[in-house]
Amino acid sequence: MNARPPEVTAQTLVEHLDALAAHSAPGAGVTRLVYDDAWCRAHQWLAERARALGLAATVDAAGNLLFHDPALEPGDPRPALFVGSHLDSVVNGGRYDGAYGTVAGLLLAAAPRAPADLPVVGFATCEEEESRFHGSFIGARTLLGDARGEELDQVADAGGVTWRAALEAARARGRAAPLVEGERPFRPLFRPAMMLELHIEQGPVLEAEGLAIGLVERIAGYRRLGLTLTGEARHSGTTPMALRRDALAAAAEMILAAEAGARAAGEPAVATAGFVRAIPGLANVVPGGCELWLETRDLDPERLDALDRGLRERCREIAARRRVGLEIEERSRMEPTALSWTLAGVAEQLARERGIPYRRMGSGAAHDAMVFARAGIPATMVFVPSRRGVSHSPEEFTAPDSLAAGYRFAAELIARLVREGGAILAGEAARP
Amino acid sequence: MNARPPEVTAQTLVEHLDALAAHSAPGAGVTRLVYDDAWCRAHQWLAERARALGLAATVDAAGNLLFHDPALEPGDPRPALFVGSHLDSVVNGGRYDGAYGTVAGLLLAAAPRAPADLPVVGFATCEEEESRFHGSFIGARTLLGDARGEELDQVADAGGVTWRAALEAARARGRAAPLVEGERPFRPLFRPAMMLELHIEQGPVLEAEGLAIGLVERIAGYRRLGLTLTGEARHSGTTPMALRRDALAAAAEMILAAEAGARAAGEPAVATAGFVRAIPGLANVVPGGCELWLETRDLDPERLDALDRGLRERCREIAARRRVGLEIEERSRMEPTALSWTLAGVAEQLARERGIPYRRMGSGAAHDAMVFARAGIPATMVFVPSRRGVSHSPEEFTAPDSLAAGYRFAAELIARLVREGGAILAGEAARP
Repeated sequence: MNARPPEVTAQTLVEHLDALAAHSAPGAGVTRLVYDDAWCRAHQWLAERARALGLAATVDAAGNLLFHDPALEPGDPRPALFVGSHLDSVVNGGRYDGAYGTVAGLLLAAAPRAPADLPVVGFATCEEEESRFHGSFIGARTLLGDARGEELDQVADAGGVTWRAALEAARARGRAAPLVEGERPFRPLFRPAMMLELHIEQGPVLEAEGLAIGLVERIAGYRRLGLTLTGEARHSGTTPMALRRDALAAAAEMILAAEAGARAAGEPAVATAGFVRAIPGLANVVPGGCELWLETRDLDPERLDALDRGLRERCREIAARRRVGLEIEERSRMEPTALSWTLAGVAEQLARERGIPYRRMGSGAAHDAMVFARAGIPATMVFVPSRRGVSHSPEEFTAPDSLAAGYRFAAELIARLVREGGAILAGEAARP
Repeated sequence: MNARPPEVTAQTLVEHLDALAAHSAPGAGVTRLVYDDAWCRAHQWLAERARALGLAATVDAAGNLLFHDPALEPGDPRPALFVGSHLDSVVNGGRYDGAYGTVAGLLLAAAPRAPADLPVVGFATCEEEESRFHGSFIGARTLLGDARGEELDQVADAGGVTWRAALEAARARGRAAPLVEGERPFRPLFRPAMMLELHIEQGPVLEAEGLAIGLVERIAGYRRLGLTLTGEARHSGTTPMALRRDALAAAAEMILAAEAGARAAGEPAVATAGFVRAIPGLANVVPGGCELWLETRDLDPERLDALDRGLRERCREIAARRRVGLEIEERSRMEPTALSWTLAGVAEQLARERGIPYRRMGSGAAHDAMVFARAGIPATMVFVPSRRGVSHSPEEFTAPDSLAAGYRFAAELIARLVREGGAILAGEAARP
């Protein structure tokens, strides 16, 4: 490491987050969809910042960005600790979601290490939110070499631009490396042995309980359904109520059925209708068609299955009663995922030693850590409080002191993990 | 009249409707929005067809098209009987709505008249459906000189194109005459003394009752509300159900409240949610905003007021209970309108004499005849059956024999009206 490691304060973190938030599409909050102009500018800014910190900034073929000691060359077979989060945002999102863990990953990668320590690789995954592509964690999956070549042409955004085309445009701006020839175009550049993601909670629990830190032991799974309703387009003035087959009225019942189903199941179950479109969408036409997206989530696989199954049944009942055709397509799914108990145990031990108020908890939101865990890599997450639990909104906020407390905890945790890495991994492997 | 009047059969009508339907934007059914390419082509085809029938085809400054004896020059002060309907369609509409009355107006204008008869002017209004502009009958209103100059710049389509700009483009294709300088840019070219509109019922009544003809005595009024809901955009995975302020779930309740309100009021009340948009419209964000359009209709002014008022109250209750902000804007309104009892009486007498099965009825749909009636011009409508009552849909259909029966009835009715015009109008005027 050539540069003097930076002293990281609350102000350091806020300044970095402010700088990153400046790279946003117009509109409220932060809008930074993968490969768009704002994303490319943020990507470039991070790479320049890494170099200023004495790090190498390496891009992979999907546009994931890796921050590491220049002495650690891509292809190095040594196991490394990965720390980071995602660079993309939702539309009109906040300035902390993903960005906090990304900035922390950059700064943590720049901290001094002893020669015997595991190497630390900071990362910014290119895509996590699925705001542009419904490709299901294409950032983390490509980082782990776990994406198939055909996805490049199958995955497309709402405007019909394929992942490949959007990626080529970003590559032309230097924001991605060339694809590898063959069926597996994404080759991992380093070997992740452990993974830590620092993230805002995005929920209300830590704030409500007055805690500084959440140690995530499980991530909720989800089912995302695309419903296509087919009623009959009729003149709104001449069609008596009794003769209608109104696709939007049926969808309205389904939206409320999703809400009622999650309420009946109780926490941590949630269900959300995030998108609906009436066809043709005119004031004087009874909607003949409707598209509706419904999502269910739970931390427990059996509860999630029951919630999803119950919702499908209710939707079919509603459609049948209203004489509306219904097709249900599963747009994407993720099983509830356990993160590393070993790493969470090390973190818990550290929190106790330092007297930091913490809890172990589940995460209702999906995260890149989930993809690492599902690939067999011990992964853990550290949450910091979100004001009022608000996220995916311009109102998203975490107090600077909370950001700094989370960062300091992560820094100490990493110091312990890279020092004791071999023993910790042996413990993880021995766990039944 | 120079040309020999055409013999109008079911086949004549079908051929004209087929030719007109060929002028449509791509997609299912007929899409012919005012001033668009398909509309301009249909407009030109009608003008050419009129000239082939020996008629003059005169356009006014808004693109309304008038078919008349070339001897009757624009500006002629003699009262004339107007017969016709609208040329525009809804998106993915049928081939009869508006087109049937337009074709009939063209052919009826070409029928031979005695010198003492009232002149007959066929017409195709440029816009009635409000599918492109929410200008509220800008076709019929401009035809009657009842549109204000400032509307040209106030009224705009969903893409922000103003009425003026769209009209200029149509004028460049010869589909409209120059605007008149000053505050009233639309000057009537003829003096309508009576108005007849032949139209498909668009509802199920005539077919269900086995009737050939409906004589319209009243047209339902409507209220169109634009609702803006403001909840809170939150992460769908981390926000417990109890903490949500979900704008789309609130809108879903309002959609069902509109439906329930119209059902409770009983026929002929109807209520329709034709458009809804969740903001931001993503699978993993609890909608923080929502736009919703609600429409209520009834034939009776007091019942309509009560329906509209009740719906607004229910929506406010729903919004308050869900802690969602609600703004209600009245996008447009039309009072229930009585058509001419005198003209309907003449038509009823004719139906009785000919043994034609008919009924007097209300219309749930608004029509250009309503605008004439509200301008003090005796107006009447003749309905023909719609299969299964389907309209505003590619499935819209009326049997050729029904089209011909309606046409023959209208032709005889016009012959009587233009012969006895003065006496009939005196009777109308004497009505309290």
